Amino acid sequence: MRKLDKVDLQLIKILSQNSRLTYRELAEMLGTTRQRIARRMEKLKKLGIIRKFTVLPDLEKLGYMYAVVLIKLKPMATVDDIINDIAGIEYVKIIEKGIGKYNLLVHMLVPKDLSEAEGRVNEFLSHIKDIENVEVVFISKVPKFEII
Amino acid sequence: MRKLDKVDLQLIKILSQNSRLTYRELAEMLGTTRQRIARRMEKLKKLGIIRKFTVLPDLEKLGYMYAVVLIKLKPMATVDDIINDIAGIEYVKIIEKGIGKYNLLVHMLVPKDLSEAEGRVNEFLSHIKDIENVEVVFISKVPKFEII
Repeated sequence: MRKLDKVDLQLIKILSQNSRLTYRELAEMLGTTRQRIARRMEKLKKLGIIRKFTVLPDLEKLGYMYAVVLIKLKPMATVDDIINDIAGIEYVKIIEKGIGKYNLLVHMLVPKDLSEAEGRVNEFLSHIKDIENVEVVFISKVPKFEII
Repeated sequence: MRKLDKVDLQLIKILSQNSRLTYRELAEMLGTTRQRIARRMEKLKKLGIIRKFTVLPDLEKLGYMYAVVLIKLKPMATVDDIINDIAGIEYVKIIEKGIGKYNLLVHMLVPKDLSEAEGRVNEFLSHIKDIENVEVVFISKVPKFEII
């Protein structure tokens, strides 16, 4: 299997702006053939470089917002066990393992209503043991959301 | 224009798992017609409820990682001006305006190499005035990334 090249990166960049383009449209944009695009797409999916084709909705218009929970765990805590525990929770959307002041960053999908949101955050935090420090930031606006 | 209903939400949920499904496939999954799906999709785009169809790549396999910059601005700072200043920077991918200990959460795309990454973060921070407090968290792993 060939390595990644410049065209693969261009393809990912174009798809990040519109993942519903057809192979034919992608081929035209990149000056190649439908068949070659199909082959590249297969490769990118097989290598796990493309994890998913998805949609970016306007959360606010759907009645939701993100609450970002920043967690510093105690030194004895096993981060990966905690990640396994919370990964299955439906409203836990993004889990990032970090190096720095916090070692776990969690985006939760919560109702726009602040008191309901707080209730859900508290419920979530009750699941996590060995927290040394935690901060909760409610996201009021997402002016930019690109993936790559 | 009709309001959002349950089928719209189901449609968004399905697209969030695979945004390349055809109208025909979506119609089959939702037990409706191709035409009705087309009409709903138009509505969701027109209302801005669907902002974008995109792709989730494995950043690590592409040689990148996120650096998350958590910023508390000084009380006199004008958050929206700062957002306008940084929104156009190519490597600034996600900007979230928050309420809590930090009022700006920025996901930057940086090289996996930590010293290069630090250089880029410092360069970024030099653009922002009126910082009261800042923390940088380098993301070593993204075990879950769902949008909704």
